[in-house]
Amino acid sequence: METQPVKRRISVIGIGAGNPEYMTVQAINALNRAQVVFLPNKGADKAGLLHLRHEICDRYMDGEACRFVEFDIPERSKAGAYKTDVKEWRAKVRQIYERLLRDELAEDDVGAFLVWGDPSLYDGTLGILDRIHATGAFDLNVDVIPGISSVSALAARHKVALNRIGESLTIMTGRQLAAGFPDTGGNVVVMLDTQKGLQEIDGDIHIRWGAYVGSPDEILVEGKLRDVRDEIERLREVSRETHGWVMDTYVLSPDGGSTGD
Amino acid sequence: METQPVKRRISVIGIGAGNPEYMTVQAINALNRAQVVFLPNKGADKAGLLHLRHEICDRYMDGEACRFVEFDIPERSKAGAYKTDVKEWRAKVRQIYERLLRDELAEDDVGAFLVWGDPSLYDGTLGILDRIHATGAFDLNVDVIPGISSVSALAARHKVALNRIGESLTIMTGRQLAAGFPDTGGNVVVMLDTQKGLQEIDGDIHIRWGAYVGSPDEILVEGKLRDVRDEIERLREVSRETHGWVMDTYVLSPDGGSTGD
Ligand SMILES: C[S@@+](CC[C@H](N)C(=O)[O-])C[C@H]1O[C@@H](n2cnc3c(N)ncnc32)[C@H](O)[C@@H]1O
Ligand SMILES: C[S@@+](CC[C@H](N)C(=O)[O-])C[C@H]1O[C@@H](n2cnc3c(N)ncnc32)[C@H](O)[C@@H]1O
Repeated sequence: METQPVKRRISVIGIGAGNPEYMTVQAINALNRAQVVFLPNKGADKAGLLHLRHEICDRYMDGEACRFVEFDIPERSKAGAYKTDVKEWRAKVRQIYERLLRDELAEDDVGAFLVWGDPSLYDGTLGILDRIHATGAFDLNVDVIPGISSVSALAARHKVALNRIGESLTIMTGRQLAAGFPDTGGNVVVMLDTQKGLQEIDGDIHIRWGAYVGSPDEILVEGKLRDVRDEIERLREVSRETHGWVMDTYVLSPDGGSTGD
Repeated sequence: METQPVKRRISVIGIGAGNPEYMTVQAINALNRAQVVFLPNKGADKAGLLHLRHEICDRYMDGEACRFVEFDIPERSKAGAYKTDVKEWRAKVRQIYERLLRDELAEDDVGAFLVWGDPSLYDGTLGILDRIHATGAFDLNVDVIPGISSVSALAARHKVALNRIGESLTIMTGRQLAAGFPDTGGNVVVMLDTQKGLQEIDGDIHIRWGAYVGSPDEILVEGKLRDVRDEIERLREVSRETHGWVMDTYVLSPDGGSTGD
């Protein structure tokens, strides 16, 4: 006798990157349709993130019975190659998700995962759910709600367009930037810069940097990279001490050019 | 005697790319603080866009007195080089904006420009306001509200992440794509493809395409580029006939790879 796949309904909801008012009407409605909300717990350091998720639920949920399930996210190893570490980490997270889906949801429930920013940018949730579906053990009905990414938020707070007329925009990690500035000629947005990215580049580059964008702790810096690099490094240090972690993004414009035009 | 610059307050509000529920709480609040809402009119062909802007105002404005000012957007010349044409067109639009700011707003008013999608992606509003401010004739106090871009919307509707683990994402125009697939190794999102982009590329590429994403007219296609290219071309033709214009975006994954992972 074959085992039937476990049927589950899930909403992956982009909650915006830092300001509770980045929530869309669609996200609020999806949240209110959920019977169970899954809240990742990334340890004391990042308690602020868990806090924002709770704030969003408090503010926007219309009070019908809904259950919150917090779950621990394991630390990612930084021992091996980046991709390998991420894959191993995702495999662990996948097991946690499988347990949540199996034990904390019923077939007619909708379970909501609240994703920071937009689910399409440097977030593993959709990839993990895909893998779970692909095992055949689950039959997942997934709905995805886009959110305001930190990229859009950064641009808005600096009041600039990200691309110059007719040019491209590349979004990359700090690790990739450290390997070389892309030669597209267009602007570059850098995320997930643990520290090295900014130090490795040079030339006539204009930077618009932001940490905790959209939140009350927001810091913005703009200028020629060579003039403001030290200041940004200092602010990162201070932030790391104050918050235990720093969450920053920046846009680089080559040839000292402005963004937008 | 020196002329004082004309002081004006403006909100540039991202309204999302196609679904009225993409509006954020922040955008709704900003809309309700405006005394005047400027609505671009791009001709009969694109009446649908004006319609969506009206729908958003009707649905989300709390009914306090607010004035709507429709203005005509000139056609862009396609005679010269792309950048030149865009610059000339923006200069014309700038004059229109200057008239609107001067004649249709008072110093204590807030005027709102509703921008399709996110104001940071392939939109000229912020650049034009910058230029106006830079002339010195106006002293503009601009507030920018991020919105759900067609890029985020496309990814959500296809239920995928845009970047593969640790890889970059490049966002470019169809014109740029026609000049060559970027060699970053990462995925590529193409916007503003008037027709040529898709025809020029080849290789083992996976495409996720969407037209009128987020709207009731949404069409999605996914597959190997070589298998679905003709179908996409056909759908574009049909759309152009039905709507008078087509608004589509797609994400390409080289090496036949999936997005997300
Ligand atoms: C794992 S990624 C998730 C990105 C998220 N899905 C989004 O759409 O913004 C985390 C990275 O996003 C960026 N980030 C997220 N929120 C931010 C914020 N409020 N201010 C600045 N950067 C932010 C930082 O680069 C951070 O390292
Ligand atoms: C002038 S750009 C403006 C982009 C907008 N600021 C944004 O954030 O999506 C117009 C291009 O955006 C893309 N686009 C906008 N809305 C779309 C939608 N609903 N579906 C598919 N593509 C869309 C198309 O590539 C179109 O040519």
